[in-house]
Amino acid sequence: MMESTPESNGSVNDGNHNRPTPAIHGPTNPMVTPLLTDLYQFTMAYAYWKAGKHNDRAVFDLYFRRNPFGGEYTVFAGLEECIRFIANFKLSKEEISFVRECLSPTCEDAFFDYLGGINCSDVEVYAIAEGSVVFPKVPLMRIEGPVAVVQLLETPFVNLINFASLVTTNAARHRFVAGKNKLLLEFGLRRAQGPDGGVGASRYCYMGGFDATSNCAAGKLFGIPLRGTHSHAFVSSFTGPDEITEKSLQSRDGSRVCNNFVDLTLMWLNKLKGLSSSEGVFGETNQSELAAFISYALAFPDNFLALVDTYDVMRSGIPNFCAVALALNDMGYIAKGIRLDSGDLAYLSCEARKFFHTIEKELRVCGFGKIGITASNDLNEETLDALNKQGHEVDSFGIGTNLVTCFSQPALGCVFKLVEINNQPRIKLSEDVSKVSIPCKKRSFRLYGKEGYALVDIMSGENEPPPKEGQRILCRHPFNESKRAYVVPQHVEELMKCYWPGSADKAREDLPTLEQIREHCMKQLERMRTDHMRRLNPTPYKVSVSAKLYEFIHFLWLNEAPVGELQ
Amino acid sequence: MMESTPESNGSVNDGNHNRPTPAIHGPTNPMVTPLLTDLYQFTMAYAYWKAGKHNDRAVFDLYFRRNPFGGEYTVFAGLEECIRFIANFKLSKEEISFVRECLSPTCEDAFFDYLGGINCSDVEVYAIAEGSVVFPKVPLMRIEGPVAVVQLLETPFVNLINFASLVTTNAARHRFVAGKNKLLLEFGLRRAQGPDGGVGASRYCYMGGFDATSNCAAGKLFGIPLRGTHSHAFVSSFTGPDEITEKSLQSRDGSRVCNNFVDLTLMWLNKLKGLSSSEGVFGETNQSELAAFISYALAFPDNFLALVDTYDVMRSGIPNFCAVALALNDMGYIAKGIRLDSGDLAYLSCEARKFFHTIEKELRVCGFGKIGITASNDLNEETLDALNKQGHEVDSFGIGTNLVTCFSQPALGCVFKLVEINNQPRIKLSEDVSKVSIPCKKRSFRLYGKEGYALVDIMSGENEPPPKEGQRILCRHPFNESKRAYVVPQHVEELMKCYWPGSADKAREDLPTLEQIREHCMKQLERMRTDHMRRLNPTPYKVSVSAKLYEFIHFLWLNEAPVGELQ
Repeated sequence: MMESTPESNGSVNDGNHNRPTPAIHGPTNPMVTPLLTDLYQFTMAYAYWKAGKHNDRAVFDLYFRRNPFGGEYTVFAGLEECIRFIANFKLSKEEISFVRECLSPTCEDAFFDYLGGINCSDVEVYAIAEGSVVFPKVPLMRIEGPVAVVQLLETPFVNLINFASLVTTNAARHRFVAGKNKLLLEFGLRRAQGPDGGVGASRYCYMGGFDATSNCAAGKLFGIPLRGTHSHAFVSSFTGPDEITEKSLQSRDGSRVCNNFVDLTLMWLNKLKGLSSSEGVFGETNQSELAAFISYALAFPDNFLALVDTYDVMRSGIPNFCAVALALNDMGYIAKGIRLDSGDLAYLSCEARKFFHTIEKELRVCGFGKIGITASNDLNEETLDALNKQGHEVDSFGIGTNLVTCFSQPALGCVFKLVEINNQPRIKLSEDVSKVSIPCKKRSFRLYGKEGYALVDIMSGENEPPPKEGQRILCRHPFNESKRAYVVPQHVEELMKCYWPGSADKAREDLPTLEQIREHCMKQLERMRTDHMRRLNPTPYKVSVSAKLYEFIHFLWLNEAPVGELQ
Repeated sequence: MMESTPESNGSVNDGNHNRPTPAIHGPTNPMVTPLLTDLYQFTMAYAYWKAGKHNDRAVFDLYFRRNPFGGEYTVFAGLEECIRFIANFKLSKEEISFVRECLSPTCEDAFFDYLGGINCSDVEVYAIAEGSVVFPKVPLMRIEGPVAVVQLLETPFVNLINFASLVTTNAARHRFVAGKNKLLLEFGLRRAQGPDGGVGASRYCYMGGFDATSNCAAGKLFGIPLRGTHSHAFVSSFTGPDEITEKSLQSRDGSRVCNNFVDLTLMWLNKLKGLSSSEGVFGETNQSELAAFISYALAFPDNFLALVDTYDVMRSGIPNFCAVALALNDMGYIAKGIRLDSGDLAYLSCEARKFFHTIEKELRVCGFGKIGITASNDLNEETLDALNKQGHEVDSFGIGTNLVTCFSQPALGCVFKLVEINNQPRIKLSEDVSKVSIPCKKRSFRLYGKEGYALVDIMSGENEPPPKEGQRILCRHPFNESKRAYVVPQHVEELMKCYWPGSADKAREDLPTLEQIREHCMKQLERMRTDHMRRLNPTPYKVSVSAKLYEFIHFLWLNEAPVGELQ
C-alpha cells in the first residue's frame, strides 16, 4: 500500500531527435518567473542595452568551488527545471511595467520594448546529465547567448541548481552510509525551508537514492512512492478500548468475520504477559495507545504499522503492538511493523527484535521475528553510521530535518561566471586563488581507468582535439604548476551535451523521467572509487585542464592582473 | 532609486470587525494545497473516520522547544500564510482521487465523500500576532476543530511557520549586531533552498528588520524595496573605453551636455594619480573595469554604485570608481558608492574611506568623503560582530547565503501537539522531559515590569481567571518543582487572539500588512531586555505556568505513565 501510481511528471521526453520537439512544460513552481531574479540583472541589462552591447555573444559557466558536507563528490540536479524555465522564458507586460517602476525614470522606453521581445531562442545550453556525479570547477552547465539575456538567467539557474544538487548529494550520502538494503524514507516536509523547499527535497532525495516520501504533493507531482501511517496525536486522541464501537473485522481471505477484534486483542495481550521474556517487563499497558492501535488495525488491517513510543516503548508500545499484530495474524493479516521515534534506537530495536523472535518461537507464529522496524528520530549520516557501528535491528529509516534542510551544510556555492564574450576569453581574478575563474568556452571529459572507475575530469578549449581512449594525455591542475599527471584512459566520456540549442540546428537531449535520472545517479555513484565516497578523509577526485588550456589561463591571468609597486 | 512601489501584498485588512469579512486570498505559493501534507494525515483521517471519531473536538498547540542560533528569543512569522491556507482549504476532485490511489483499496467510498466536503468552517485558530517575540513551549497557535480536519493542517502549518520564524529571527539577530543605522540588504535568492526558499526569505528578512532585497519577485509580491547594480561579469564583459560609442551625458539639471564623458573620466583618473596619497598605489588601472564603470554611469548617472573588486580594489577598482564619480560630479550627479565583495572588508573599507576623504580635501569635492560603502562577502552575525570590533567604514551590508539558508541552524523544530480532545486534556510523555507536552486548552499572557520590559510569559488553563496588573502572581516552571517566582506585573498582555473563528460568532483579527508586521516586530524587540538579546551567553527569558496548571500537568503525567517494576 501507499505507493502512489506514478503520474506524468510533466517532463518532456520526445524520444526522437528528428521529430519537431513538443512544447516543454513550465517550471514546477509557478513562482519561477523571469522576475525571480536579482534586480541587478535588469540594471545590467539596461546598461548593456544603453551601451549597444546587449547582443554581444557571451559564454557563462555554472559551477561550484567545493564539494558539500566535507565530502569529495556532488550530484548534479535541477537541470530539468532550468530547461523548463528557459523554454518558457517571456516577460509579461505586467512584469515589464514592474521592472520599469524599479529602474530609473530616466531609462529609455525602447529598452522596455526590447525586454518584452526577449526569449531564449538565441541561447544555447550545454549541461552534464542530471543525476551525474560532478566535481568542483568543472562546468555543470555552459550557457551561451546574448549577454543581457544570459545574465537574466543567472539567478534563477543558480537558485534552481544549488539546492537541488545539495539535497540530492545529501540523500546519496545518506544512502551510502545506510547501505543498499535499508529502506530510506524522506519525512522532512514540515521542517523544510518553505513549501517547495519540502517539495524539492522530496523529489531530489528520491533522485539521490531514497525509496519513498511522506509528502503527498511530491507523490502526486513526481510519482514518488508515498509512506506514512500515524502520529503520536493519533495515539493520545483515544482514551481506551471502550470507545471502539465498531469491533468486527473480516478475515483477509473474506471467509470469516471476527465480531470482537478488541477482545481478540485483549486475549493476546494477556497471553503475552505469560511469556517467559515478558516477566516483569510490562504490567498494565497504556489503554489509549491500545485503543489507537486497534482502531488503526481495523482501518488498515493490511498495513498495520504502529508508532510505539508515545508512552513507553518496552512496557507499553511493543506489547500493545504485538497483541494487535497477533490478533491480525489470526485473521490472516501480516502486520507491517513498528516505528520508533525516540530513545536509544540501537537498544530499542534490538530489544524489540528479541521480543518478536520470542513470540515467533514461543507462540509459534511463523515470520513474526522478521517484523519491520522503522526508526525516525533526528537521524543523519552520523547517527546512521553510529547505529551501524553499535549494531541495530532497524530495517527502515525515516529521515527528516537533517536531510531536507541539509543541516550540516545548508547551501552549495554554485556560481555563474563569464568565460568568453565575442570570442574573447575572460577571467575573473581574486586574491583567493580558488575564486579565480577558468576562462574560455570549454569542453570537458571524464577519463575512466581499466577497472571502470572514473580517474580524472579534464577541461579543454572548445576547439582542441578531444582526448582519445588509449592515448596518453597530460592532465594539469588548473592553478598549481607542479601538479600534473599522464593518464591513458580506457574510456572517455564527454560530459556536457546540448539540452537547449535555441534556434541552432542541433539535436536537443531528451529530458529523462525522474525514475531514469535516479537510475543514472545510482549507476554513476557505482562508477566512483569508494575512497572518494567514504565519510572520513575521502580522497579528492582529480579535476584538471589540458596543457593548452593551462598555458592560456596563465597568460590571461598575467595580462589582466595589475602590476603592483612595492613601497 | 530602485525602491519598488509597494503594491497590494494580497493581505486582507478588513479594518472593521463588524462588517462581513471579505474573501482571503490563497497562499502566496500556489503549490500550497491540501496535498502539501504528510500521507499519515490522510491515513489517520481514514482511521478516525472509520472509528467514528473524525468529528471529535480536538485542540492542538503549535510551538517550538528551543530558540534557534544559540539565542534566547525567536520571532514568530508565517501566520498570514496559514490563515490564507485554511481560508481556502478544500480538496479538489483530482486531489481526492489521488488520495484514494494512495490509500488502501479496501477504504470505503463514503470516506472520500467526507473528504470532499471538508473545509475549515468548524476550525478555530488563536495565535500570537505575527512579528511578535516568542519563546519555547508557549503556543504560537492554538488550533481547535474536528480532529481529522485539524490533523490535515498539521504539516502545512508547521512547514509555513518553521522557516518563516527561523529566517525572521535570523534577520532580527543580524539587525541587532549591525545596529540601527546600517542599511541591511538581503542578497540571498541564488543560494536559497529553492525558489520560494528565496521569496520567503526576502519577505521574512524584511519583516525581521532588513531594509531591502535584491529579489525582484519578492519586491513585486510584497512591496519590499529593491536594490542592485551590477556584477563581476558586467565588469569583465567590457574590454576597454574604446568600445564605448555613445559618450555624451546631459547634466543632471539638463542645462548642458558633456560630449565625451570618457575623456572627462580619463582626465580625472590622471588627476587622481597626482594625489599625494596615490603615489605608488596605482599605475595603469584595469581598462575593462574602467569601461564598465563609465558605461554603468552613462546608463544610471543618478545611481552609480560600482563593484570594485573584480581585479584589484586599491590599485584599480577604487581609482576607476573615483574618476567616474568625479566626472559625474562635474555633471551635477552624486555617485552612490562602491561595493566590496572580497578581501579584508575592515581594512579595504577604511582605506577606501581615507582615499575618499583625501579627494574631498585635496580636490575640494564637498561630500566625497561620505560616499557609501557596501560590503557583501559571505557575511553573517559573527563577521558583522568581528567587523564592529575591528572598526570599519561600511555603511551598508549585503547578506546572502548565511542569512537566507540560516546557515548556522537551518531548521526550527516547531511541533503540533494534541493537548485536549472532547474536553479531555491530553499529554505526550517522553523520556526526555523537554519533549513532554503541556496539556489542556490554554491561554497565555506576557507580564511586563515597571520599566516596560517583558518579565515572564505564563500559561494557564482556559477557564482560570487571567492575571491582573498590580496583582501578585505565582509563576511556576512547568516541569521543575523548585523553580517558581512571584511577579507583580505592571502590564499584562494576552498573547493569543482569534485569527480564524470558523463559524463561531467571534471577531477575527485583521491580517496586517507586511509593513505593519515589520513595525510591530521592531517594537516587540525593543521591549526585550538586552541581556536576553545579546549574542554571547544571553539570559534565558522565563516561561511559566500557573500554579493550577502546574498541578494538573503533574497529575496527568502520573496518570498516563506506566509504573515500572525494577528487576
